Amino acid sequence: MYPYKLVDEVREKNPLVHNITNIVVANDSANGLLAIGASPFMSSAVEEMEEVASIANVVVLNMGTLSKEQIEAMEIAGKTAKKLGKPVVFDPVGIGATTFRKQEGIRLIQEIKPTLIRGNAGEIATLAEVEWAAKGVDAGSGEADVVEMAKKVAKNYQTFVAVSGVEDVITDGEKTYLVKNGTEYFPYMTGAGCLHSCVCGAYLTLTEHPEIEQVVIASTMYALAGELVADLLPILAVGTFRTNLLDQLSQISSITVEENARIERIE
Amino acid sequence: MYPYKLVDEVREKNPLVHNITNIVVANDSANGLLAIGASPFMSSAVEEMEEVASIANVVVLNMGTLSKEQIEAMEIAGKTAKKLGKPVVFDPVGIGATTFRKQEGIRLIQEIKPTLIRGNAGEIATLAEVEWAAKGVDAGSGEADVVEMAKKVAKNYQTFVAVSGVEDVITDGEKTYLVKNGTEYFPYMTGAGCLHSCVCGAYLTLTEHPEIEQVVIASTMYALAGELVADLLPILAVGTFRTNLLDQLSQISSITVEENARIERIE
Amino acid sequence: MYPYKLVDEVREKNPLVHNITNIVVANDSANGLLAIGASPFMSSAVEEMEEVASIANVVVLNMGTLSKEQIEAMEIAGKTAKKLGKPVVFDPVGIGATTFRKQEGIRLIQEIKPTLIRGNAGEIATLAEVEWAAKGVDAGSGEADVVEMAKKVAKNYQTFVAVSGVEDVITDGEKTYLVKNGTEYFPYMTGAGCLHSCVCGAYLTLTEHPEIEQVVIASTMYALAGELVADLLPILAVGTFRTNLLDQLSQISSITVEENARIERIE
Repeated sequence: MYPYKLVDEVREKNPLVHNITNIVVANDSANGLLAIGASPFMSSAVEEMEEVASIANVVVLNMGTLSKEQIEAMEIAGKTAKKLGKPVVFDPVGIGATTFRKQEGIRLIQEIKPTLIRGNAGEIATLAEVEWAAKGVDAGSGEADVVEMAKKVAKNYQTFVAVSGVEDVITDGEKTYLVKNGTEYFPYMTGAGCLHSCVCGAYLTLTEHPEIEQVVIASTMYALAGELVADLLPILAVGTFRTNLLDQLSQISSITVEENARIERIE
Repeated sequence: MYPYKLVDEVREKNPLVHNITNIVVANDSANGLLAIGASPFMSSAVEEMEEVASIANVVVLNMGTLSKEQIEAMEIAGKTAKKLGKPVVFDPVGIGATTFRKQEGIRLIQEIKPTLIRGNAGEIATLAEVEWAAKGVDAGSGEADVVEMAKKVAKNYQTFVAVSGVEDVITDGEKTYLVKNGTEYFPYMTGAGCLHSCVCGAYLTLTEHPEIEQVVIASTMYALAGELVADLLPILAVGTFRTNLLDQLSQISSITVEENARIERIE
Repeated sequence: MYPYKLVDEVREKNPLVHNITNIVVANDSANGLLAIGASPFMSSAVEEMEEVASIANVVVLNMGTLSKEQIEAMEIAGKTAKKLGKPVVFDPVGIGATTFRKQEGIRLIQEIKPTLIRGNAGEIATLAEVEWAAKGVDAGSGEADVVEMAKKVAKNYQTFVAVSGVEDVITDGEKTYLVKNGTEYFPYMTGAGCLHSCVCGAYLTLTEHPEIEQVVIASTMYALAGELVADLLPILAVGTFRTNLLDQLSQISSITVEENARIERIE
């Protein structure tokens, strides 16, 4: 039995989510968090990082448009949250694309030890040191086994891992789940993955100790919201998909997720 | 009789609004200003601050994602505008959330002496030094009298004050108005308050000397636009609310505002 | 016969477009590029500029919210792309508005020697050193002959020039085309011109050597997408126009463009 009730619970508890994110997705991430019932706080000013991370319930770090200042802010916010026993989500956007991203991204993960790394297959492949034809910040394509990659990253970095894709793969290195909800339209909305990370962050605040099943339900809810929108869109429509996804995230309930979830535990 | 004609007038005069704002709301603020008939100019490069503020009809300062560079830019733009007799709007986003924001925000207000401070109840409570459970950048909740808080801030800082909420409170410290239009959906759109500040800025350009009634009509128009959108949305739909609000702002006229305004002068 | 097939081809080739852009339009530019079939990469971190420009198929530089750091990033990215024989698009947003923009913008153009400059009439007038009442980042109005201005800029800077407007003017200094598709709603969507630049960039990657006709078809496709949206909107609706434009860009095909194009070669 999965904790479907989290979908309703997050609306009651209204967790404060501290995001260090990028100019491309900041607006959608904030609106998406409001839609699911969380309270977004976007800030990367070094001067207030310790304080913001202290009042927040979770910190979500997104390296979509990484800069030197942001790296410093991420270090402070991430370490502060971890010290206070709060979850930290790390989104390694385009980590395979450049030497700068790879070096700094891996260093940040090693220093902060996030609770969850959420990325696409190309990004997780980079962290797993597996060959993969990533394309900029997009997933790209590869032959490697996504489940094995995810488990390797989870074990190496002692973290939960969620890989977005046609099927999401979610693992703590021991238990592994597939989320089979979703839609092929997601990659056509910039920041769809970034918002997925934010949603996982919000759900991870709902118990005293983070559990992998919280990531499973966050991912199922999010993938299903996209699926329900796509069911009504006969062809790709980037603008309407985005608008309707925010609508669906505003309305989806525990019972809807429970009735439509396609989750499989594979080990 | 209120100056409802401002709603049509701003479309004729097309004032240039200089915004120093944040990565979360920049796009909606620009589109919202275009929708009401103004011309947005977003810039925070120190090198051009004096020049931009000089050609603009009003400067709107938003501390949503404050940084050291932005503070310097705000000082130059704000002081330049004031020196040239142009209105300045200050939006103290999340001013109660961190020491950095509180210190720098209050210092900026003291130095620039804005024409209008527009915030939510939590932000105005911080400026009024009243206890209030603000939550990050959201309004939060408190017991204090919003009207008294607003008047105190108006008198202390010699400025107009507009407090967004279920009822907007607008005061110059002497005259006080309530705007009873609006919708409970506003807090679910990130940057809804920021755009309210921009709209007030645009309307403040329409007379030689700023009058509090300009803020009243800007706030009424904006609140009513949201109300008209919400009337057609049976449940929260974050994406559609945002899209339709921009549509409504493109179309609303003086006569619609006059016919639907619920303004009360309470002192 | 124009290369209408580019509209379908870009969806097959999925070029990687490196954008250095601003906080106002980054999201729409990324979603618009995804919609037409390209892959956006937004980054302005100096540390990775050479590498990003090297893996990208084209670089698009947008000075909408110029800063010192961005200028340095633009220099590296632009020069790297040119050295590798890749096209570079330069969007001189608001170049006439301030001394800083004019100085730095012209210097960047002179140093990078972009393949295409895409701007509105006010911006091209500044580059042509022709008098024009530009208004902030908006086109403004003037009496000068837009075709002559465009040709002058094309010759002076040895570049393609595309001027957005009621009729787009596209020239390499010798051949000149008018694109008569479009809609008067475009100027009410912030970043409409910026996305036009991105689209031109994506289309310029589709042949070994850039040809002016690629810009003509990119501009015709984009203008027609807006026109098709506007045909269904009896009055201005800023939110819906934006959403539906992204939808239309997701769906428009070579055959639709060929059937509806209103292109005129004038010399």
